[in-house]
Parts: sequence; C-alpha cells; structure tokens
Amino acid sequence: MTSTAPAIDAFAPWPVERARQVLEPGPIVLVTTRHEGRDNVMTLGWHQVLEFTPSRISCMVSAGNFSFTALRETGLCVINVPEADLLDTVVGIGNCSGADVDKFARFALEIAEAREVDAPVLPQCAAFLECRLHDARMVPDYNLFILEVVHLGVRVDPETANFIHFIGDGRFRLTGEVVSKRALFRPDMLGI
Amino acid sequence: MTSTAPAIDAFAPWPVERARQVLEPGPIVLVTTRHEGRDNVMTLGWHQVLEFTPSRISCMVSAGNFSFTALRETGLCVINVPEADLLDTVVGIGNCSGADVDKFARFALEIAEAREVDAPVLPQCAAFLECRLHDARMVPDYNLFILEVVHLGVRVDPETANFIHFIGDGRFRLTGEVVSKRALFRPDMLGI
Repeated sequence: MTSTAPAIDAFAPWPVERARQVLEPGPIVLVTTRHEGRDNVMTLGWHQVLEFTPSRISCMVSAGNFSFTALRETGLCVINVPEADLLDTVVGIGNCSGADVDKFARFALEIAEAREVDAPVLPQCAAFLECRLHDARMVPDYNLFILEVVHLGVRVDPETANFIHFIGDGRFRLTGEVVSKRALFRPDMLGI
Repeated sequence: MTSTAPAIDAFAPWPVERARQVLEPGPIVLVTTRHEGRDNVMTLGWHQVLEFTPSRISCMVSAGNFSFTALRETGLCVINVPEADLLDTVVGIGNCSGADVDKFARFALEIAEAREVDAPVLPQCAAFLECRLHDARMVPDYNLFILEVVHLGVRVDPETANFIHFIGDGRFRLTGEVVSKRALFRPDMLGI
C-alpha cells in the first residue's frame, strides 16, 4: 500500500497549554496505546480539559475496553483527533475490540512514533496529544484517568479542522462555521 | 419586558441516561446555581460524560469563580445548553463575575424553576440538566466536580440544535451537518 498519510513532520509542535484548543470543542478522538509489544486504538468521546499549566485532561475509558489495561499498566497514550474524512473508520474502531481484531490492519491505519511516550501516533488525524497518566485515584470508581499532556502536535488548525461530534444513537454532527468574538473578550482571556 | 423565552413546559423530560446526547458533542454550557438567596450563572466548556446509569458527568469549575462556592456549598446546579443565538450572551457571561454583576439583569436572562434541585433554569437554552454533587474528592486538587444528572429537559433535539463549541483565543465553531452512521453500529450500541 502506498502511504497517503501526512508525515509526522507535517505536525507543528504547539505549547501544551493550547491542548484546550483541540479538545474543548468536544471532538470524538482515537486513543492509541502500546502494551506488551501490541498497539491498540479505541474511539473515545468522554474527555475534558482540566488545567492549562500543567496541561491536564481527563478521560473515561471503560474497564471492559482492551485499551483500559494498556493505559492503566503503561500510563501512556496518544489522543489523536480525527476529521470527518475518517468518520467511517472512527465508527468501525468503536464497534470492534482489540481483543479480537488488529484494528490497524483492518482499517488501514498508518502509524508514526510519538516524541515523548511509547505509543503510536495516527498521522491521518488533524492533531495528537501525547499523554502520561498523572492520577489514577478515580479509576476504581469511575474509570476516569487524569492525564498530563506532554506533547501537542497540530497539522490542521481548529479554525479549519472538520471535527466529528457524537450525539448518540449512531448519529454525528460535523463542525461548522467559525465565529470570532475576540472583540468581546477581556484581553487576559485571549491567546489560549 | 415582554417574555420571549420558551416556557419550561416546552422542554420534554428525557431519560437521564441520554445526557450524553447533549453533552458528548462538547457544547459550551451555562451553569446556574443558587446560594444564600442569590442566583448566579457561569460559562463552562470543561465538562465530560462519565456514566450512563447512574447518569454521571464531571465538570471543572475554577476556584476563582463565584459559582465554585455555590456549587461546593449547595451541591446543586443546572447545566443549560445554549444555542448560537445566545453566543454574545455566552461570551459576556464568561467575561464578568457574579461577584461584581447581576448577570441575569445585565444579559436579560429569563429564569424558570428546576424540578429536582433548587437552582434556576435558563429556558432560552436548548436543553438543561439538573445535577446533584455526587463526589467532591477531586475538588481540592483539580476543582473537578463529579455530578449526578437527576433531570434532563430537552427543547431542541441535538440533531437540529445549533450548539456552540469553543476553540480558544476568543473563537468558536458552530455545530454543522448531521450525519447518521446507524447502519455501521452494533445494535446494542444504538438507542442512547
């Protein structure tokens, strides 16, 4: 197969405190892990931003998920933010398990290596966040992982990216019009 | 002033496990609280879904926020999901503090009473989630509140709602095209 994915050097390194610019709009993401020599990828919609500096986010990964063990054991993952051109892939990944299937082969996913963590990056996506597990206290009760973002790579700016948003029951909304309200913001609230 | 807001009975009660349908797409929300006889409202983008049943979500409310004390002390809030027609209001609310301003008067916000919690509902919004604080263990370290959704009212379906998504630096993306991929989903993953 001829590679069609952008090279990893197509991604600009952004300051990690700008993680909110790609995660706060609420896109569906693809979480990649590497555990015991095996890569896996899952679809995830339950995540949020927690803090700018240090750059922290949280995500809920169900304990029934093959990626749960990888994240808990290694404390490492990459959060890849796909665009609408990958929508069928996003749905397909969310509807099978890495316990049964090599999703990278099934969905013809290209892989690049992350910079700071030992986990695969999906260069077909618009952006990726390399993460280390910071706090696992909420995992037993809620499967909630608190992560620190240690590297942020962006290939497509959130102003133009075609993010995918899940509204349940098999339906999605794609990102639409961009509107700037910078003139209404206090100056200290701009920039990030 | 003549009322222009929809009446509270324009909102259909939805099963609370469907909270993901309005929150997972990642809209900016308006959180309302009532504390010591005073109502307040804040703009919030850092929230996520945690569980279907019981219906649980989390949100990060900065300790510098006037609403932080109200939520911590009362354990009650309403999460109102606005549409793009309220964008200037959303920005205005996010750029002032309830410590200085009566935001309901300044922004001509109408108020209705919630069903299960003592806090105001904003009937100009598309949906609202009445919430009770379930777990405050992550508040000291992360200002992260784990909430249980005890009532969900929906006036505008997420398939047609014009959600607002914040991409930082004073800029927003509005919700766009709806795409159904129901045919690609496992049947047990449909319905919610």
